[in-house]
Amino acid sequence: MFEALEAGKHLDKTHYEAREAALRGELLAHQFLLAEQNVPTLVVVAGVDGAGKGSLVHQLNTWMDPRGIETNALWMHSDEEETRPYYWRYWRCLPRRGTIGIFLGSWYTHLIRAPLEGKAHPARQARQLAQINDFERMLCADGYLIVKLWLHVSSKTQQLQLTEEAPKQQQNPRIEADANAWKKAYPAVLKNAQDILLASDTAHAPWHLVEANDRNYREIASGEVLLAAMRERLQQPGKVAPQPLPALADTSRGQPTVLARVDSDARLGKKAYRSELQHYQQRLQDLTWKAHRKQRSFIAAFEGWDAAGKGSAIRRVTGAIDPRLYHLAQYAAPSKEELAHHYLWRFWRTIQRDGRATLFDRSWYGRVLVERVEGFADREQWQRAYNEINQFEAQLVEHGSVLCKFWIHISPQEQLARFRAREKTAHKRYKITDDDWRNRDKWRDYELAVEDMVAHTSTTGAPWTLVAGNDKRYARIQILKTLCEALEQALD
Amino acid sequence: MFEALEAGKHLDKTHYEAREAALRGELLAHQFLLAEQNVPTLVVVAGVDGAGKGSLVHQLNTWMDPRGIETNALWMHSDEEETRPYYWRYWRCLPRRGTIGIFLGSWYTHLIRAPLEGKAHPARQARQLAQINDFERMLCADGYLIVKLWLHVSSKTQQLQLTEEAPKQQQNPRIEADANAWKKAYPAVLKNAQDILLASDTAHAPWHLVEANDRNYREIASGEVLLAAMRERLQQPGKVAPQPLPALADTSRGQPTVLARVDSDARLGKKAYRSELQHYQQRLQDLTWKAHRKQRSFIAAFEGWDAAGKGSAIRRVTGAIDPRLYHLAQYAAPSKEELAHHYLWRFWRTIQRDGRATLFDRSWYGRVLVERVEGFADREQWQRAYNEINQFEAQLVEHGSVLCKFWIHISPQEQLARFRAREKTAHKRYKITDDDWRNRDKWRDYELAVEDMVAHTSTTGAPWTLVAGNDKRYARIQILKTLCEALEQALD
Repeated sequence: MFEALEAGKHLDKTHYEAREAALRGELLAHQFLLAEQNVPTLVVVAGVDGAGKGSLVHQLNTWMDPRGIETNALWMHSDEEETRPYYWRYWRCLPRRGTIGIFLGSWYTHLIRAPLEGKAHPARQARQLAQINDFERMLCADGYLIVKLWLHVSSKTQQLQLTEEAPKQQQNPRIEADANAWKKAYPAVLKNAQDILLASDTAHAPWHLVEANDRNYREIASGEVLLAAMRERLQQPGKVAPQPLPALADTSRGQPTVLARVDSDARLGKKAYRSELQHYQQRLQDLTWKAHRKQRSFIAAFEGWDAAGKGSAIRRVTGAIDPRLYHLAQYAAPSKEELAHHYLWRFWRTIQRDGRATLFDRSWYGRVLVERVEGFADREQWQRAYNEINQFEAQLVEHGSVLCKFWIHISPQEQLARFRAREKTAHKRYKITDDDWRNRDKWRDYELAVEDMVAHTSTTGAPWTLVAGNDKRYARIQILKTLCEALEQALD
Repeated sequence: MFEALEAGKHLDKTHYEAREAALRGELLAHQFLLAEQNVPTLVVVAGVDGAGKGSLVHQLNTWMDPRGIETNALWMHSDEEETRPYYWRYWRCLPRRGTIGIFLGSWYTHLIRAPLEGKAHPARQARQLAQINDFERMLCADGYLIVKLWLHVSSKTQQLQLTEEAPKQQQNPRIEADANAWKKAYPAVLKNAQDILLASDTAHAPWHLVEANDRNYREIASGEVLLAAMRERLQQPGKVAPQPLPALADTSRGQPTVLARVDSDARLGKKAYRSELQHYQQRLQDLTWKAHRKQRSFIAAFEGWDAAGKGSAIRRVTGAIDPRLYHLAQYAAPSKEELAHHYLWRFWRTIQRDGRATLFDRSWYGRVLVERVEGFADREQWQRAYNEINQFEAQLVEHGSVLCKFWIHISPQEQLARFRAREKTAHKRYKITDDDWRNRDKWRDYELAVEDMVAHTSTTGAPWTLVAGNDKRYARIQILKTLCEALEQALD
């Protein structure tokens, strides 16, 4: 595929200046138009060493308004990145809506350079490519405009660049790369790049190949590619064709849901509770320290009906873990900053470093529960969320995190009794609001949402635990026990 | 001072349980009350190794609702912390209003442990103590409740703890410390701690000394200290007596301000501009790479009148720096999340790692400019901001950052001409709003605010540069030149 890119395209100064004059004004104007429409733009600049990626990014920053652009180089690695799941580093610098994020060094970099570093690994590569495609599809579905540029230089041009022997006006500054290693690796890297580009050349995030041997041509061509993508986006706002939605067949009327399997009569006596509580809290304490020593992280998400006893169950968990080892995050309605990003952003950014636990009091499942039932997410959004969530969790698990998810179930009768009791207790009255009563009226809708959630997201690596919550003591022990067993299994 | 803490205070189980029953409910209730009043609480738990700090923090998390508490251990150091000014690590985990931040490991830790690590340094210690007091005073003035606990154990108790020979119910878990080193260092650390505690024992953030040899007593006493502080805070909301404000003597009526010294006729011809621009941009490019190699960071704040040409001047600066080496931050009215913190928080968190530049398009000076003139900050707030800002900048400079601050000055006539021109140019019309015209009416107020700002915050380490902005070309070159010279001087 790269042969077509060694045709010798170039621009002399006069032609460059003529096209640049038109281009820069248009780019700037389109940057503002996209900002007005709140479109987040993601520009990936890729290519072999010496292709002029850095100088192109510099040029783009000069043509457009740098105030709306964040350049992410991802070349200064930090231990905070390396002790978290791989994509955390990209999530934390995703541009907010209305701005442009340029990635000089991206989710493609390691993959493409693998042959140079002797790290090629076909099976891993296939998995990573699938992750890339999922990641980009997810962002596009959320409204991102993704423009991917591949700057191609011939081996000869690359060598001139790396040895700093290119003609003066063509020489890119500051290249630090091993010319000899590249001389040998160039064909293998190119072959590999071709496979990767082909596999990630999707309709919603296509690759744009630019012959980069000549600086003038490279800059103008890249700028024009970007401009065309911006213009197209303004003309037809939906980049991703919505996935066909499965027909909603309401076969479940009058039928039990998965929640019917939860034993609503499960009880635990006070005495047995005390001894089990002590036992499992001690075990959990030991296990979290062990996880810390082994630098494994541990993530637990807590969901459940209103008044199911989430808070008090979580307190029994935090009560067992050294406060130095956990972070407890609570989620309510998203803030403005959170809304300016993909809905998973606020959860990704909370993920703690290896060796620590992240506890989520409500979680990313809000998308397919409250947001679905209350209509804050439309059907297309929550329907695709199952897949997005599975991808997210698979990445956590792949990184080595132990992941537990709890739905604390109580019966409608038990909930009613608890609501009434809360109303009678002075210091608990603030815990019961009109929303709680309203949600109660939608019990069946929530039940179906839970059923779908469990069906779609209970995976081998990240199974759901349905907790029998009518008896708080029983529920707490079930949760502690599940956590201990998951950790034990992972740490052995 | 610690002798008084070896009296042998202890509590048996019955007394412990009786006092605990009363205490925990009260703590929880006061946590909610403070949350309601949006008070941010900061609890510092200090003491020698083996004093039971960890188990106390655990207990506090158990008594109160962990959902409103963040425990910051600051024991897993990260390179992202170490390549930024020292206090960045604390700023980034300051609790937001309405929540509690427990610091197990704080701005006191290194200082107190210094004799153990053979790193005592009297002059540095004096400076750091001054910083601590400034930091705490600033937070208290902003509404923070600071509760500082020192847990005291005798050398004997410490040794039993470190060698894990304490009676079972007293033994704290997970102590990893060198018992022999402590045996020797204990007296020196205690003496040092005494000096530090005395020097930082202020009315707004006093130390509370707790005899910690007995676990039961330690927990109850600490809990009761915290409760008393919370209760007091609810009764008398203002913890810090407002500083006496200097009388406002308007001696300046009809007098020129510092801005009169700016040469409003300074001009630069087109040709000279082109050659100087190229010259200084090249120099700046080289210097920022040199700063990167030397791992020095570089911070520039841009302020100026509306239409002074800030944006286009910044573009000439970013145009000279490799996009991998800078971050450009823009500030408008603070978001809800930002308002939930001290006003400096949003600037602190933006500070980039060593080797990179942080450019501020508007900055922390908003506090003493727009917030002062428009009344968003009251006089007490903006008046104390000068000192807070000087402390902030001193920390940047002490860390090794090169700091430049620009006020781009134009005459009222020039501003009017530019406003009119903007109104006539289609793609610039959005840049002129009613606010701009309103601000113009307050020219004299702003002028006095600038005068005060320069008088109070132009320091040796962080001087102001007043830029002659009537001629845009002249202004851009002046800025580039100033940046180059500051970097050159710092890097030589």
